[in-house]
Amino acid sequence: MAPDFLHRGSDLHPVSHPDHAATSLVTGAAGFIGSHLVDALLDRGDRVIGVDNFVRGQRENLAHLSGCERFHLIEADLSSEEGWRGPLTSLLEEEMVHSLWHLAANSDVAAGVADSDVDLRQTFLTTISALRIAREFQIGSVLFTSSSAVYGESDRELDEDSGPLCPISNYGAMKLASEAALSAACGSWLQRGVAMRLPNVVGSRCTHGVLFDLPKRLAKDPERLEVLGDGYQRKPYMHVRRIVEALLFLEDRAPAGFGRFNIGPEDEITVRDIVSLLTGTLGLSPEVHYGGADRGWVGDVPHYRYRTGRLRSLGWRAQEKSAEAVGTACMELAQNWKDSRCSQ
Amino acid sequence: MAPDFLHRGSDLHPVSHPDHAATSLVTGAAGFIGSHLVDALLDRGDRVIGVDNFVRGQRENLAHLSGCERFHLIEADLSSEEGWRGPLTSLLEEEMVHSLWHLAANSDVAAGVADSDVDLRQTFLTTISALRIAREFQIGSVLFTSSSAVYGESDRELDEDSGPLCPISNYGAMKLASEAALSAACGSWLQRGVAMRLPNVVGSRCTHGVLFDLPKRLAKDPERLEVLGDGYQRKPYMHVRRIVEALLFLEDRAPAGFGRFNIGPEDEITVRDIVSLLTGTLGLSPEVHYGGADRGWVGDVPHYRYRTGRLRSLGWRAQEKSAEAVGTACMELAQNWKDSRCSQ
Repeated sequence: MAPDFLHRGSDLHPVSHPDHAATSLVTGAAGFIGSHLVDALLDRGDRVIGVDNFVRGQRENLAHLSGCERFHLIEADLSSEEGWRGPLTSLLEEEMVHSLWHLAANSDVAAGVADSDVDLRQTFLTTISALRIAREFQIGSVLFTSSSAVYGESDRELDEDSGPLCPISNYGAMKLASEAALSAACGSWLQRGVAMRLPNVVGSRCTHGVLFDLPKRLAKDPERLEVLGDGYQRKPYMHVRRIVEALLFLEDRAPAGFGRFNIGPEDEITVRDIVSLLTGTLGLSPEVHYGGADRGWVGDVPHYRYRTGRLRSLGWRAQEKSAEAVGTACMELAQNWKDSRCSQ
Repeated sequence: MAPDFLHRGSDLHPVSHPDHAATSLVTGAAGFIGSHLVDALLDRGDRVIGVDNFVRGQRENLAHLSGCERFHLIEADLSSEEGWRGPLTSLLEEEMVHSLWHLAANSDVAAGVADSDVDLRQTFLTTISALRIAREFQIGSVLFTSSSAVYGESDRELDEDSGPLCPISNYGAMKLASEAALSAACGSWLQRGVAMRLPNVVGSRCTHGVLFDLPKRLAKDPERLEVLGDGYQRKPYMHVRRIVEALLFLEDRAPAGFGRFNIGPEDEITVRDIVSLLTGTLGLSPEVHYGGADRGWVGDVPHYRYRTGRLRSLGWRAQEKSAEAVGTACMELAQNWKDSRCSQ
């Protein structure tokens, strides 16, 4: 395993982080990935302004930071201008923000299929607000967590320059729409816009996906497990700590202008293998029942494969395979599982 | 010249247009392309519901249709739900709409660079409304006029499956965002979504572009002409009548699901050649002054080249070269020019 990049401090960021503490603005700060990013930015010495509307974000994800003087948490809704003008604006008038990390988004693909307003407001309109904030407060870098979902379904290895980009969910569509707005901003006033297309992400504080859903089902019934889809869904997975490494790397190395980067490991894992890893780590042997469909829900892309050459050419590559990422997350889950059993 | 497809009636649409009159819904009906499309749909026998907010659309573009019983014009603003619920809804409850043509959009690239709200509201949020209308009233086909601007700047021939799709204007970004929403709709509830990427379009009723701008300047001063950019901007041009042919062809032939189609001629023309054609047709010899920049304004893509193989493979190809399209438009302008001089 590579040494933990997140605790190396600021030595990897000579250009971006001069002696005085830089200030980062993080939207979706109380979310799954957002809260881990906030931790990492504080660890390297930044001042951090976190913004969340606490619709999906959890206060407990940031509870350990109470009392941290370098962290300001603002409750604001970025889906409309009225939602963020006020407390956030007055803080930004005092702070010189270096990077805007835009992570606020809907994270529930199925919710956005049922009601297209969810992704429109929580993903796309928050991006429009993030760009307005960047323009008004002259923030030179906007780093946006996009998604593999922008590609839609394809049998090809997905690379950043190939199309056809046909998202099949509003989740993916509003990520692509956000990328488009970021691209246009770079065409006129924004110095740098980085769209980071994340794979499936696992780890503590996650709120969706197979490693959120299955443990909940197993807690209810450890003898029998129903799995959505036929289990042959096959995708690349990364642990949230490695994702944050990649985000910080791109902040440091992505060139000026608009750029898109697939972030991912160099392999994939099936849902069936994830089920084995999870039940094995938890010491359970449930009867597993798979569904008949090739996917878990409408809007789910059942398999994809990334090309990650662009990120590798800048000098970063994933140190873990998909199974290792899932394995680490299962170990974390097992610890919580044990703790929750002990406290019962 | 090919015979005028627009007046052939409905014989080319055996599947789409049964004996009873079909009803088409056209957003942006009073606009440049929208009003020509309405004419063509009425010519082939459709009932047509036109919607416009008359921000950019002109009532005079539809004045010749007053008294036409098959045409209903609704003044409504599609940029918010409050803007269209009401008169449009009650009409749609009575009419079974076959195709929704979504043409309502901002058409002024420069206006959208100055204020990103313009494209957000007029192009993107109108698309969201169009999709809601299609879903609520079970309209199976949504045909959307997208743009070459979704590609941004590229030295490559642009084809529908290649990327990287980096729009440099909010105009292009919100067209791409609209395509993304259309793609996602096809991923769950919409039978067919057709994104038609238009080239530069000329002809009567146009509201922007070189053949709108230059005649206005020449009317003020026929002796001296200032041209934005160095004149070497080089793009494919089509006449609006040929564009409408292509739109109707795609309605007839585009397969189910989400599809993207470049619509264009097989060559390009420079602004310098357009200036020669225009001044020659008007019988003027102004002193022409070109600017120093490679483009007319921020957000302008100075040159692009389409691959049109996808449309050709369905059986349609442009019958005119770019110069012929511009030449026809210049002849129309010359007629108006002469008429306006006569009436002075």
